Amino acid sequence: MSGNTFGKLFCVSSFGESHGPAMGCIVDGCPPGLPLSEQDIQPEIERRRTGTSRHTSQRKEPDQVRILSGVFEGRTTGTPIGLLIENQDQRSRDYDKVKDRFRPGHADYTYQQKYGRRDYRGGGRSSARETVMRVAAGAIARKYLRERLGVTIQGYLAQLGPLRLEVRSLRTVYDNPFFSPDPSRLTEIEDYMTQLRRDGDSVGARINVLARGVPPGLGEPIFDRLDADIAHAMMSINAVKGVELGAGFESVAQRGSEHRDLMSPQGFLSNHAGGVLGGISSGQDILVSLAFKPTSSIVIPGETIDIQGRSVEVVTTGRHDPCVGLRATPIAEAMLALVLMDHYLRHRAQNADVAPDTAAIPASAPPAGA
Amino acid sequence: MSGNTFGKLFCVSSFGESHGPAMGCIVDGCPPGLPLSEQDIQPEIERRRTGTSRHTSQRKEPDQVRILSGVFEGRTTGTPIGLLIENQDQRSRDYDKVKDRFRPGHADYTYQQKYGRRDYRGGGRSSARETVMRVAAGAIARKYLRERLGVTIQGYLAQLGPLRLEVRSLRTVYDNPFFSPDPSRLTEIEDYMTQLRRDGDSVGARINVLARGVPPGLGEPIFDRLDADIAHAMMSINAVKGVELGAGFESVAQRGSEHRDLMSPQGFLSNHAGGVLGGISSGQDILVSLAFKPTSSIVIPGETIDIQGRSVEVVTTGRHDPCVGLRATPIAEAMLALVLMDHYLRHRAQNADVAPDTAAIPASAPPAGA
Amino acid sequence: MSGNTFGKLFCVSSFGESHGPAMGCIVDGCPPGLPLSEQDIQPEIERRRTGTSRHTSQRKEPDQVRILSGVFEGRTTGTPIGLLIENQDQRSRDYDKVKDRFRPGHADYTYQQKYGRRDYRGGGRSSARETVMRVAAGAIARKYLRERLGVTIQGYLAQLGPLRLEVRSLRTVYDNPFFSPDPSRLTEIEDYMTQLRRDGDSVGARINVLARGVPPGLGEPIFDRLDADIAHAMMSINAVKGVELGAGFESVAQRGSEHRDLMSPQGFLSNHAGGVLGGISSGQDILVSLAFKPTSSIVIPGETIDIQGRSVEVVTTGRHDPCVGLRATPIAEAMLALVLMDHYLRHRAQNADVAPDTAAIPASAPPAGA
Amino acid sequence: MSGNTFGKLFCVSSFGESHGPAMGCIVDGCPPGLPLSEQDIQPEIERRRTGTSRHTSQRKEPDQVRILSGVFEGRTTGTPIGLLIENQDQRSRDYDKVKDRFRPGHADYTYQQKYGRRDYRGGGRSSARETVMRVAAGAIARKYLRERLGVTIQGYLAQLGPLRLEVRSLRTVYDNPFFSPDPSRLTEIEDYMTQLRRDGDSVGARINVLARGVPPGLGEPIFDRLDADIAHAMMSINAVKGVELGAGFESVAQRGSEHRDLMSPQGFLSNHAGGVLGGISSGQDILVSLAFKPTSSIVIPGETIDIQGRSVEVVTTGRHDPCVGLRATPIAEAMLALVLMDHYLRHRAQNADVAPDTAAIPASAPPAGA
Repeated sequence: MSGNTFGKLFCVSSFGESHGPAMGCIVDGCPPGLPLSEQDIQPEIERRRTGTSRHTSQRKEPDQVRILSGVFEGRTTGTPIGLLIENQDQRSRDYDKVKDRFRPGHADYTYQQKYGRRDYRGGGRSSARETVMRVAAGAIARKYLRERLGVTIQGYLAQLGPLRLEVRSLRTVYDNPFFSPDPSRLTEIEDYMTQLRRDGDSVGARINVLARGVPPGLGEPIFDRLDADIAHAMMSINAVKGVELGAGFESVAQRGSEHRDLMSPQGFLSNHAGGVLGGISSGQDILVSLAFKPTSSIVIPGETIDIQGRSVEVVTTGRHDPCVGLRATPIAEAMLALVLMDHYLRHRAQNADVAPDTAAIPASAPPAGA
Repeated sequence: MSGNTFGKLFCVSSFGESHGPAMGCIVDGCPPGLPLSEQDIQPEIERRRTGTSRHTSQRKEPDQVRILSGVFEGRTTGTPIGLLIENQDQRSRDYDKVKDRFRPGHADYTYQQKYGRRDYRGGGRSSARETVMRVAAGAIARKYLRERLGVTIQGYLAQLGPLRLEVRSLRTVYDNPFFSPDPSRLTEIEDYMTQLRRDGDSVGARINVLARGVPPGLGEPIFDRLDADIAHAMMSINAVKGVELGAGFESVAQRGSEHRDLMSPQGFLSNHAGGVLGGISSGQDILVSLAFKPTSSIVIPGETIDIQGRSVEVVTTGRHDPCVGLRATPIAEAMLALVLMDHYLRHRAQNADVAPDTAAIPASAPPAGA
Repeated sequence: MSGNTFGKLFCVSSFGESHGPAMGCIVDGCPPGLPLSEQDIQPEIERRRTGTSRHTSQRKEPDQVRILSGVFEGRTTGTPIGLLIENQDQRSRDYDKVKDRFRPGHADYTYQQKYGRRDYRGGGRSSARETVMRVAAGAIARKYLRERLGVTIQGYLAQLGPLRLEVRSLRTVYDNPFFSPDPSRLTEIEDYMTQLRRDGDSVGARINVLARGVPPGLGEPIFDRLDADIAHAMMSINAVKGVELGAGFESVAQRGSEHRDLMSPQGFLSNHAGGVLGGISSGQDILVSLAFKPTSSIVIPGETIDIQGRSVEVVTTGRHDPCVGLRATPIAEAMLALVLMDHYLRHRAQNADVAPDTAAIPASAPPAGA
Repeated sequence: MSGNTFGKLFCVSSFGESHGPAMGCIVDGCPPGLPLSEQDIQPEIERRRTGTSRHTSQRKEPDQVRILSGVFEGRTTGTPIGLLIENQDQRSRDYDKVKDRFRPGHADYTYQQKYGRRDYRGGGRSSARETVMRVAAGAIARKYLRERLGVTIQGYLAQLGPLRLEVRSLRTVYDNPFFSPDPSRLTEIEDYMTQLRRDGDSVGARINVLARGVPPGLGEPIFDRLDADIAHAMMSINAVKGVELGAGFESVAQRGSEHRDLMSPQGFLSNHAGGVLGGISSGQDILVSLAFKPTSSIVIPGETIDIQGRSVEVVTTGRHDPCVGLRATPIAEAMLALVLMDHYLRHRAQNADVAPDTAAIPASAPPAGA
C-alpha cells in the first residue's frame, strides 16, 4: 500500500536504498514447480548492470543475487521467493554538498516534503539502484512466461536524443552496450555519447518493448486493463515521462478507417492497437514505447534552493549516466514481464474453466517495430 | 481484483453494461463531513453527457444520478456512498449483425476470448457508457479536493485530428461543446467535424489536463508513484493509447540542462517535470496529456471474422461519436481527481505526523499549457 | 480499504444504511458462464428475512433483490454483478431519544468517535440490515460451489442461551424458524423465547456451520490461511464474539495424542482440526462455531451517556430480536461460502497447473457435528 | 495476495523456510521519524526464542536481526524496512522418514495437495519458525504504538492443559519462561511439563492478550472491523483453533442485561465487549483470548499414509515443543500490535480531519483479566 509492492497475484515487494546494506525483494505468488536457480536471474542483472560500457555509470559491484527462500530441490515451491543483493560499493563519500540542498530535477525536494527527512546518500530509495530488484523479479516472471506460455519479451533503444534508430536486427540488440537494434549505427551513437560527456550534459531516450506470443484474454477491464497496468508499470520506472501502446500519440491524427486493425481468418491485418483491445490482449504482439527524460545529474551548475529555502547552486558529481535510457531496456523488459505474469494469473483465477466459443486467430500481422 | 475497482483508500467500484438495467458504483473511503448531494454530481454528468452537441452520439437519457447511501443530513458519514443511474434508453434493437461477428478495433473479439461469452448489446461492459460512473465518483473527489485543499482540475481539447489548438482561454473551455481552449477556432472545428461525418469516418484527439494547487508530497514510490498511478488511470479510459507527464515524449530529444527544472526561493523556474519529481508531487501544476484513438465504429465497411472464424464484413450502425476524444475531457478530469484524492489519503495515512523541515516553495512557474 | 469490501478475487463490496434508500453490493470476480437469476438469490434472502417467526423482529419488507449487471442471457458474463434491494420499510419515526444518546452495547458511541457523526436512524450502517447483502452475494458463491465443485454448506443453531442442542437431523434445519437441528425441542425453544420476551431481555447463541466436499488445497499460508480468513469473515458479522475451528477451545485441555487426526488410506480417522491443516483445507468437513452475544437492544432501561457526556438513561424501543443468533444461520453460511469461493479462485490462480504427486484421500471421518 | 503479506497500510511481507538460508520480511508503511535500531527489535525476538527454557525446543540460534533498509541516521525514513535473520542452525539431518510420509496433524498433506511439492526439512514454510518475523515486525509497530500513542500490549498464559491460571501479577509475566501471570504456580507448571515430556505427549494452551490505551475509533466496518482483523491475525498463528473477544463464548449463555456494558461520565462500567463495539475500538482495553492446540509432533507413534497413499506409521523426532502455546505469548502480542498499527493508519487516512462532537470517556472499567 505504501507503494513498494507491484502486482496483485504475482507480487513483488521491494526494499533497499542506494547506499544502504542491501537491496532485496519478495516475489510472492509464483506457481510451484518452476525450475529456478540464481543462474536464471544473474544474467539479466548483468545486462542491467552499471559499468557494461564506459557510457554508463561506473559502479563496480558484482550484484550477486541470492535466493533465500521459495525454492527447494531446484524448483519453486509456491512459497514466497526472497531475493537479496548486498550493496558492496558503499564508498565513503562526502555528502555535505547535497545533504542540505535539493538537486534540481531530482526527488530530493519531494522526498523531503513528503517524509520530513531523506536518505541523501546517492539518492537513497529514489536512486535507479532500486531497479535491480525489478530486473531480478522480472527474470522469474520472464522464465515462467517463456517456458510455460512461449511468451518472449524484447526491448531496444528506439531513439537516443536526436538519433532515431530503425529496427534492423532484434537478435543483436543484447550484443551492443546501447541495446541498439541497428548494428550499423554503433559508431555514431558512441561518438554522440562521447561528445555529450564532454559537454557535461545528458540526453533523453526512447525505448520500445514488445512481447510476442501473449495469449489472448489477459487484462481486467475496466480499471486494470492490460494497457493501463502496463502504463502504470512503465511510468513507475525512474525518469519515464511518457508511455504509448501501439500507434500511441500517432493515433491523434489518424482516421478510424486507418487505425482500426482489420481481421481475417489468417489473423489481424495490422497492429495499430499494440496488441490490446478493450484492455485485453488480442494475441497480437504487445507494443510499448517509453520516453526517458535526460538525467538531471550533470556537471553543469544549476540554480536551486537549500533546506532553509535559500538560493544556492548545485553541481552533481559522482558516477552518473549521461543517458539513463541506455540501460533501461532490461528494466522495461522486466516490468512488462511482471505485468504479463500478474495478468496471466489473474486471468486464470476467474476464467480457468472458460472454453472459448471461438478459437484464437493467428497473430499474423508483422509487429510494428520489426 | 477483477479490475472494477479504482483506488486504494478512496476506492471506486463500478458496475453496469451499456444496455443493462443500470450503471452504478460505490465510493468507499470518502472522509466524513463533506457536504454532498446529487446537485454536486449531476452537473459533471451533464458535461459528459452524450447529446450535448450534434457531433457526439445521440443517446437521449437524463442520466439522473441517485445517492443511495453514505450521506446523512447533507453530509458524508464515512460509510460507502452508493451511486446509481438507471439506463432508460435501452431501445430494442436488432443485434443480429454484431452478435456473431467481431467489429474490428473493438473489444468484441477479446471479450469473447477472455470470458467465452459477451454482452453484445451496445458493447456491454466495454462501452464508453461505463465512464459515466467515473465522472460521478470523480465529482465527489473533485469537491473534496477543491473545498478542503484548494485543488482545481481543468482539462481541454489540445488537438483534434490534424488541428492543434493553442490555449487562449481556459475559462471558456466548458462553454463550447468541444472543450476547446481557443474560442476563435470553433467554426473550424465544427466544419472539420461536419466533413468527417460526411466521410463516415472518425478521428483521434489529444486531451490535456492540469491540476493546480496540489500539495507537495503526494505519491508513493517506488511502484505507486503519482505519475505511475496517473498513467494507470488515464490509460484505463476507453480509446486512450498514450499518456505523458510534463514534457513527455519531447524529453527524448531534450538535454538535461534544458529539461531539469531549476528552483529559486520564489519557486520553480520551469515545469518540464509536469509537477512530479521522483514520483511525488512537487507543488507545481500537474500536467497530463492523453492520446485518444479514432473510434472504430464507422460506417465504412471493414473486413473481419465471425465467431466461427469465417471472413465477414461489418458496418457499424447506430449512434456513435466520430471523435470519442471530444467528450473525454470530463472523464480525464474525473480520473485525475480520483488519483489525487486517493494519494492524498494515502499520504496522510503514513505521514500525518510529519512536520517538514522545510516549507514548500511557491509553484511560481506558469503552467506549460497556460 | 475502508472495510466495505470482502474477498480478494471473489470480491463483495457493499453499501447501504438501515433506513437509507437501498442496500446494494457488487460481486466482482465471479467466473463467467454460471447460470444465474434473481431466483437463485431470493430464497436465501427469504431465509434470512426478518419476520419469519414472531421471535425475530417485525420488519415487513419484501426484500426483493434485483440483478443490475453482469448477467446476460441467463448466465454470468465475468463482469461485475450489481445487486440492489430497495429499502421500503423506512417508517417515519421519532429518533429524538437515540439521536443524542449512546445506546450501551451498540456502535453508537464508537461511530460517533470514529467519524464525528453518525446516521442514527435504526443504527445506520451498523445495523444488522447490512447482512442482507452478504446473504445475496453468498448465494452466488454458494451456487458456484455447489454446482461446479460439489461443495455444500449447512449451518444450524447449536445453543440458545442455556439450551444446548444436539444434531438430530441436519435435513430439517431450514424447516423451523430457529434453525434447530433437533426437531424434538422446538416447543422448548419456543417457550424459552416467549419467557425471554416477557422479561424484556435478550440472550446469546452459538451457531455451527459446516462445509462438505471442499477440495483439499484451499488457503494461502501464512497470513491468509483458510481458517484465518474464516475467522475474519465470521467475526465481521454483527454480534459475533468468538470463532472456533474444529475442536476449538477444547483443544486447550487436549493432549496431542488425542487431538491429532490420524490418517489411513480410507481417510482421516477423526476431525479435530475442523478440515484445515496448516491453514489449508484437507478435504475433510470444514467445521466452524460462532458465539453470538445477546443483543443490546432491550426494553430494560440502562445507564449511559449522551453526546455531551452527561449521564442519561436509555430504553430501546422499536423492532428488535431477543436473540440475533436466531437468524444468523444463513448469514454465517453465506460468509463461509464467500471465503471458500474466494480461496478457490486464489488457489487456482497460483496452482492451476499443479498435478499433485498424490491423490487426495477420502474425507471418510464423520463430521463432528453430524 | 498469496498470503504472505499482513496489513493494508502497515504491511508486513514475509518469507523464509525453517531450514532455508534465511528468514526475512519487509515492513512497508511505517511512518517516518520513528527512532529505530536493531536494539528495539532484538529483545522481542529473544523473548520468543526457542531455548529459553528446557520445556521449549532446543534450537540454539542467536537469531540476530539485521535492518537492511528504511532507517537512516537512527530514524525511519518512510521507505520500506527490510529485516533479515540468517538461519544458522540448519544441521544436516536425515529427512528420509518424513520426506514421503505425512505426519498427522501437520501441514505435510495439505501442502503436498496444494502445491504438488513441499520443502519437508523441518516443516519448511509451515514451521513455527516463520513467526520470528512476525515478532520482529511487531516490535516496530509496538514501539510506535507505545511511544506515539501510549498503547501497551501484554499477553500471558491463561491455561496450560488442565491448569487454569489466575492473573496475580502482569508485571512478572516476562520473568518466567511460561509467561505465567501467577508466579506462585511455576513449580506446578514445571512439574506438569516434566511429566508431559516423560509421557512423550503434548498439550494445548490458552493465551490472553490485552491492549491498553487504544484510542477510540480504530476499525473499519463492516468487513474489516477491528475484532474481525484481530481474529484474522490470531487465527493465522500456527496451531490456533479459536479466538475470542471480551466475553467470547461466555456470551452465548449471557443475557443482554448482563452483557451490555453500561456507560457513565466516568467511563464504561464493565468490559464484556472486550474493547470493540460495532467493530470499532471504544477506548476500553482490547481483550483477546486464543486457543492453541497441542502440537502434533510427539514421539508416540501414529497411523498415517505416505505419498503413495499407503498406510504407514510415523514417529516425530527432533526438537519440538510439548506445548507450542508456551512461547506463543510474544507472537500473539506482535500480531495484536500489527493489527492496531494498521488500523491506526487506516483510521487517520479517512478521518484525520474529524473533530469528534464528543470527547472520549475514560476507559475506567478494570480489564476483565486484571
